Amino acid sequence: MAPPRVPLFQFYPHLLLLLFLSFVLIMQTVTPLPVHKAPRLSLHNKDALLISRSRPGGAISANALLDFKTYFYRQTLDHFNYAPQSYATFRQRYVVNSKYWGGQSFNNSPIFAYLGAEAPIDNDLSVVGFLNDNAPSFNSLIVFIEHRYYGKSIPFGTMEEAMKNETTRGYFNSAQAIADYAAILSHIKHQFSAHDSPIIVVGGSYGGMLASWFRLKYPHIALGALASSAPILYFDNITPQNGYYSIVTKDFKEVSDNCYKTIRRSWAEIDRVASKPNGLDILSQRFKTCSKLNNAEELKDYLETIYAVAAQYNRPPNYPVTMVCRGIDGVHNGSDGDVIGRIFAGVVSYKGNKTCYDMNTYNYPSETSIGWQWQTCSEMVMPIGRGQNETMFPAAPFNLDEFIKICSEIYGVPPRPHWITTYYGGHDIKLALNRFGSNIIFSNGLRDPYSSGGVLEDLSESVVAVTTRNGSHCLDILQATKTDPEWLIMQRNTELQIIQGWLTTYYADLKSLNK
Amino acid sequence: MAPPRVPLFQFYPHLLLLLFLSFVLIMQTVTPLPVHKAPRLSLHNKDALLISRSRPGGAISANALLDFKTYFYRQTLDHFNYAPQSYATFRQRYVVNSKYWGGQSFNNSPIFAYLGAEAPIDNDLSVVGFLNDNAPSFNSLIVFIEHRYYGKSIPFGTMEEAMKNETTRGYFNSAQAIADYAAILSHIKHQFSAHDSPIIVVGGSYGGMLASWFRLKYPHIALGALASSAPILYFDNITPQNGYYSIVTKDFKEVSDNCYKTIRRSWAEIDRVASKPNGLDILSQRFKTCSKLNNAEELKDYLETIYAVAAQYNRPPNYPVTMVCRGIDGVHNGSDGDVIGRIFAGVVSYKGNKTCYDMNTYNYPSETSIGWQWQTCSEMVMPIGRGQNETMFPAAPFNLDEFIKICSEIYGVPPRPHWITTYYGGHDIKLALNRFGSNIIFSNGLRDPYSSGGVLEDLSESVVAVTTRNGSHCLDILQATKTDPEWLIMQRNTELQIIQGWLTTYYADLKSLNK
Repeated sequence: MAPPRVPLFQFYPHLLLLLFLSFVLIMQTVTPLPVHKAPRLSLHNKDALLISRSRPGGAISANALLDFKTYFYRQTLDHFNYAPQSYATFRQRYVVNSKYWGGQSFNNSPIFAYLGAEAPIDNDLSVVGFLNDNAPSFNSLIVFIEHRYYGKSIPFGTMEEAMKNETTRGYFNSAQAIADYAAILSHIKHQFSAHDSPIIVVGGSYGGMLASWFRLKYPHIALGALASSAPILYFDNITPQNGYYSIVTKDFKEVSDNCYKTIRRSWAEIDRVASKPNGLDILSQRFKTCSKLNNAEELKDYLETIYAVAAQYNRPPNYPVTMVCRGIDGVHNGSDGDVIGRIFAGVVSYKGNKTCYDMNTYNYPSETSIGWQWQTCSEMVMPIGRGQNETMFPAAPFNLDEFIKICSEIYGVPPRPHWITTYYGGHDIKLALNRFGSNIIFSNGLRDPYSSGGVLEDLSESVVAVTTRNGSHCLDILQATKTDPEWLIMQRNTELQIIQGWLTTYYADLKSLNK
Repeated sequence: MAPPRVPLFQFYPHLLLLLFLSFVLIMQTVTPLPVHKAPRLSLHNKDALLISRSRPGGAISANALLDFKTYFYRQTLDHFNYAPQSYATFRQRYVVNSKYWGGQSFNNSPIFAYLGAEAPIDNDLSVVGFLNDNAPSFNSLIVFIEHRYYGKSIPFGTMEEAMKNETTRGYFNSAQAIADYAAILSHIKHQFSAHDSPIIVVGGSYGGMLASWFRLKYPHIALGALASSAPILYFDNITPQNGYYSIVTKDFKEVSDNCYKTIRRSWAEIDRVASKPNGLDILSQRFKTCSKLNNAEELKDYLETIYAVAAQYNRPPNYPVTMVCRGIDGVHNGSDGDVIGRIFAGVVSYKGNKTCYDMNTYNYPSETSIGWQWQTCSEMVMPIGRGQNETMFPAAPFNLDEFIKICSEIYGVPPRPHWITTYYGGHDIKLALNRFGSNIIFSNGLRDPYSSGGVLEDLSESVVAVTTRNGSHCLDILQATKTDPEWLIMQRNTELQIIQGWLTTYYADLKSLNK
């Protein structure tokens, strides 16, 4: 059921719209769903939609999914406290595919473990094909673990119950989540008699952060990590606030200067029309909204989301940014043009021809939107904003004080905006890691707005960056398809070669240490 | 005030006697106090005693202590939870000596940070001279940080209040403690405008574990760690249970085979005498106990403690094991000898000539005994035991099930005996760390019984072991004295050269990264 809308949201539309950026992996659909702004977007039927609209080859077949067996682990609620309530347990879901696994007897075959992020594991299981695609050649066990407080891994019974109050929410954070993964992976090694099998953890977006942090914090459990599109530097002031929207802007500009200029100009035009006596009627009509707009912000939020999502998931073969711009550029009404008409044409080109367009997307919260809003309001404080004339969007600077105030009012406790860098690091990362740690791949597509907070250069010989100029969010860990461009195939091959190198070295070490 | 004695202790004397091994650093006194068995030993006046009985040069002078300034940091009670009670804070003490510090302007001079362990910081401040001794040549800032729940850093006001119930005790664990250190060290860098100053953390015994774990978990905060006498492998089944007492036995045997044999034979002799109708009277008389023995265990515990402590702190110039054996071997009553008389002569030689010997040492619990008992009963579960005829002591195997049962009864929650290795690792440590991590010195004196659980071989090029054949517990980090033997001076020099190497590399990296 949908929880009541938090009234505060209405007073800080810009602020909150920009802040709650969720990274749920969405698959290669023709029209990616606008999932990156959790608290305001409709995600309630995402999974069903994604699967039904997937292109052939874009999702793991139902048949392949049958190879996965579901388990539940009795997980400790609080790993870092010894009060009786900390010992409470919850059922945490993980699924295992042992079809390709060589086992311990076959040279201690490896384990590929996908670390779940801010969503139920089901969708990732369908679209994150990297593990399945490569398990046969590595003879690897495949594991997907669900993140606490999502899907079927929710303490206190239900999401509603878990998020109900300040006490039940407290255990919902990244340190507890990766400790969960440590416990489950140790358990799996025992369960499958795989003591010496090396584990490679894989994650995307927030899950990519978790994968890289897991390798750093639990090197005795994971041999290496593939961290896809993990903006681990988008904390504190490490990355400029406008990193995200600067890349969205660049993406559009690269496709079409006219498109970019039209969008840039459109916000003032929308405001101008909206300020007329019947302005909202006009805009509602022109954008074919399903219900009358309550204010211009609704429309602007909707458009902003489309542009951001198009850029974040700007994937082959359709390249959503190109689709939007094709619409915008396709309408010719003279040199000045009809900006409103052009923008709407962009929407139609991207969303398809519909009888109406639903802009009231805030009323259908999903587990992801509920959970991720909490996570960003507690520890995952990413200062994403933009100043005046820095991007093609209106100014919406990130204001930490304001953010703290709002989150405190919503949740009763303030965020800890510096905790992520205290616990995991981030500042001067090359200085810190050039002689510490090993075996992490930070992969990024440079067209992904989140790449602005990613690790884009090698930090050491084995903590490396793999980037693609044309790549988008988490593209490399999705299932390979026949239409994948050459650069994507090459990126995956590079990653596989690096991982193979880690394994080769590990097996040599294992042998030389006389195990 | 002294909390009531837990009745359970009386029923499991052997078990508990062996388990609660505390590592409080004690200074080079003529007769080290028996501090390693926390719950049963008198520590209430340890600090005063230690300072008054110190040899010249063995403790930092009162004058030098004046260079330290005391601060209190407002510390977060629970770093890994976001419930309102987690945000509660407590005052955590740290002391800083900036007399020798070059500052940021002078080549980003380093910070030497001592990580407090299971005791108030005061005593360590007096005896851990390694930082003070070497600060002048490194131009380093000196910091000592007190461990939560000890000294003046106790949440909830008092130790009594803090340990009162299951909720207030829950926050008392190592992960929270090193997170405290991360927060305080980050704060100190800010406070002293020392952003680019490298931090070297130093710790001994349990504090040595914390130092090595801190470097592993927070490499972005500490450049390196000197972990003195840190038995990080004395968890799960990594180290044989009898490691500790095997080394105690070896230490005695090396000094004198006769002494070793006498001790080995003495337990049965004590039991034989005790079993006589007036046996306890006889033993009380012969051992000049201050009050009549209640049972033979009291005496055996007392003796066992003397031997263990003598071995653990078997320091130059007096070498307590030699002292004990000098007493035991010095009494000649024919070839069979009077075993009881010999053993008592060992006590006198070690403790000095007294009007009586107090064997009721369990009634004066200290912060250390109270705190460390909790720590060992929650997460620091070190399976220290010994089988039949494995050592010079009577059998007293470690029984995990029994241990869990007892701790659960005392504290209401069971220990988590596998958590330390899950969170910090330990199994197959060379395989895990030979290509991960850097800049840790594990120093051990091989006569220290705890060295059995230490890292005694290099794990990689910069995670190294520095051992001394004749060294004892934490000897290297104590203040240098004029009577230090050559091998001890060399050990410290080796450590300093390694640390200097880390710093040199760091400064070169700092420069080359254009900071």
